[in-house]
Amino acid sequence: RVNGDRLWDMLMDMAKIGPGIAGGNNRQTLTDADGEGRHLFKSWCEAAGLTMGVDKMGTMFATRPGTDPDALPVYVGSHLDTQPTGGKYDGVLGVLAGLEVVRTMNDLGIKTKHPIVVTNWANEEGARFAPAMLASGVFAGVHSLDYAYARRDPEGKTYGDELKRIGWQGEEEVGARKMHAYFEYHIEQGPILEAENKQIGVVTHCQGLWWLEFTLTGKEAHTGSTPMTMRVNAGLAFGRIMEMVQEVAMSEQPGAVAGVGQTFFTPNSRNVLPGKVVFTVDLRTPSQEKLDRMRAKIEAEAAKICEALGVGCSVEAVGHFDPVTFDPVLVERVRNAAEKLGYSHMNLISGAGHDACWAAKVAPSTMVMCPCVGGLSHNEAEEISKEWAAAGCDVLFHAVVETAEF
Amino acid sequence: RVNGDRLWDMLMDMAKIGPGIAGGNNRQTLTDADGEGRHLFKSWCEAAGLTMGVDKMGTMFATRPGTDPDALPVYVGSHLDTQPTGGKYDGVLGVLAGLEVVRTMNDLGIKTKHPIVVTNWANEEGARFAPAMLASGVFAGVHSLDYAYARRDPEGKTYGDELKRIGWQGEEEVGARKMHAYFEYHIEQGPILEAENKQIGVVTHCQGLWWLEFTLTGKEAHTGSTPMTMRVNAGLAFGRIMEMVQEVAMSEQPGAVAGVGQTFFTPNSRNVLPGKVVFTVDLRTPSQEKLDRMRAKIEAEAAKICEALGVGCSVEAVGHFDPVTFDPVLVERVRNAAEKLGYSHMNLISGAGHDACWAAKVAPSTMVMCPCVGGLSHNEAEEISKEWAAAGCDVLFHAVVETAEF
Ligand SMILES: NC(=O)NCCC(=O)O
Ligand SMILES: NC(=O)NCCC(=O)O
Repeated sequence: RVNGDRLWDMLMDMAKIGPGIAGGNNRQTLTDADGEGRHLFKSWCEAAGLTMGVDKMGTMFATRPGTDPDALPVYVGSHLDTQPTGGKYDGVLGVLAGLEVVRTMNDLGIKTKHPIVVTNWANEEGARFAPAMLASGVFAGVHSLDYAYARRDPEGKTYGDELKRIGWQGEEEVGARKMHAYFEYHIEQGPILEAENKQIGVVTHCQGLWWLEFTLTGKEAHTGSTPMTMRVNAGLAFGRIMEMVQEVAMSEQPGAVAGVGQTFFTPNSRNVLPGKVVFTVDLRTPSQEKLDRMRAKIEAEAAKICEALGVGCSVEAVGHFDPVTFDPVLVERVRNAAEKLGYSHMNLISGAGHDACWAAKVAPSTMVMCPCVGGLSHNEAEEISKEWAAAGCDVLFHAVVETAEF
Repeated sequence: RVNGDRLWDMLMDMAKIGPGIAGGNNRQTLTDADGEGRHLFKSWCEAAGLTMGVDKMGTMFATRPGTDPDALPVYVGSHLDTQPTGGKYDGVLGVLAGLEVVRTMNDLGIKTKHPIVVTNWANEEGARFAPAMLASGVFAGVHSLDYAYARRDPEGKTYGDELKRIGWQGEEEVGARKMHAYFEYHIEQGPILEAENKQIGVVTHCQGLWWLEFTLTGKEAHTGSTPMTMRVNAGLAFGRIMEMVQEVAMSEQPGAVAGVGQTFFTPNSRNVLPGKVVFTVDLRTPSQEKLDRMRAKIEAEAAKICEALGVGCSVEAVGHFDPVTFDPVLVERVRNAAEKLGYSHMNLISGAGHDACWAAKVAPSTMVMCPCVGGLSHNEAEEISKEWAAAGCDVLFHAVVETAEF
């Protein structure tokens, strides 16, 4: 068993960096707080005897050597960046649990054939720079480095410039490392494990996603002196599209979600009908067929809504991944570990995207999940218990050590 | 007749200060650009022999003395502040036309019994600090000075602090001045004069307004892993409310408008269902009865929409004025001036709010309007012709001089 108290202490110490406004964290990608969190993680890794490598995307790789110089490493990790009003566990748990696995191996004097690499992927959240899982996407060859460097935050700053600014641009080519396997431990971010009263989620799949960024073009005009019949109202079109997105998702139940989290009205003044409304529809489902159908429906219906109002409508896909099936051997290993340790468990499909989804393109990969209170995540009130955290870390420990060949 | 070229030159010179991004202006209240515009206006006033007074709200009063030391002044003005993506004429025309009236009087050696005071009211637009027409509202006793000073911009800066910062907080008690009459010349900001091919709008009324600021409280949650049935989706409630506001306005046709120009999603991240959505409904109609009914309907329907979604809903009125009837004697004087000068004219109800609406509470007041291209305003593409500008200024000149007793 791992040391649950030690894991919890690391979680609480990391949470002091980039505090939020309601008990959670605001440690967004490539902010000063992100830089500070990275330094703390690095110091812990070095204290545990690991060697730190950093790639050109800013992803951190902390290596514990194996006994066979030719054996590829087993990677275990997640991300330390957070949402603007994020929780203390989303991502952080997976990175620090990876470190706790290594610390436990050190305590027990365990040597493995394959090295273990604790990984902190850069820009998983995609809150500051879309798309999410950016660094793992470059690692897996899904995005080019140039594309990633050119991503802009809402203020117009680029990923490349901000990475240099905080001093975490490494020398390593992204994706040059080869993996024997990849494990990621994460909170569920959904309500199922808690509702079913299970300690461990054995993650078999991850649902696919589209982020559709719409730009609606209306006619900026005075709210008071512009008659209803003369309006080209991009705000109204936005309202109708939100309702339509809800209807499309409801018509594909069960196993589909869609909604809008972000919008920008221009000029965003009380007495000006917006000339421009930009917003992103987030839609997901585990079925490839449904994913394509929902995207097509939403785009077609949005075009109709806008046409009826004379509003211009363009769409750009700013995030995408297909549904993922995790490696059956690793999945089985996670299930066996839970069983052996006496933890209750069930199969899960991940509702959120994870770096494991991209890693699965280049290596056998899987995930372990623990419950979170009320299914709440992307919320400062996100909560888990020390016991939940430790149970998943135990499962991770056993699956990782077995894969790394003790 | 006034000097139309000179008026136009002043308009174009003022438009150089606080340029927009598309040919218009961004000279919002109490910004550095606002301060610069004020200095230019002051220098022109002094060159025309006027004496500048400034009150505690930052409103500027430039006086041309009358012959009777006991006669109350005739005020003529509007505002120099703009929307974030505003036009070159909205407000500016009325202030600079007031100055052109005085310059023409100087040219012709006209002496009047009543002094003339050219006025630049502070914070008419209400874009940076709600409500609109703030300084004239304090002048008319509608708001207290403390209330006005405490208004905050979206960054949290207060009106009082920003007024001091730009150095335009005067000594004069707000509202201490008494007025013989108040005239305001403004572009129509709507399509009627152009459509009816008239040069002059004789403004008989102004429609009433409510700005209803809604705060919807949902549950911040992950867009991917939160099932549709577990969402408390404040964004969806906002979408439904926009549609409902449209329906309420359409059901009160003709003579009613309503829409939404401003919204803030929190945390405004693509993969987070918003925990909070704040937005303002702007609703207007010339009928007091309709105004009250529309407000009640919108508030009641919004409450129902939110209740059905489990979303919290609170409303604050952040702007309001009742419908206004302008002074019949002054209205007649404007109409006669247009008639005498041979300009085509028609009666108008102002669709927008103006400082004249508050001035009407404390003095006989009225307005003159000229057309604007396509009815477009609160848009950088706002446009008028030099001839239109001059025609309205001619009418203003005659009505003001007659009222000031030549
Ligand atoms: N796990 C997680 O929240 N990742 C962010 C990408 C997503 O929205 O799924
Ligand atoms: N004239 C004008 O646009 N005033 C701003 C207040 C309003 O929205 O009517």
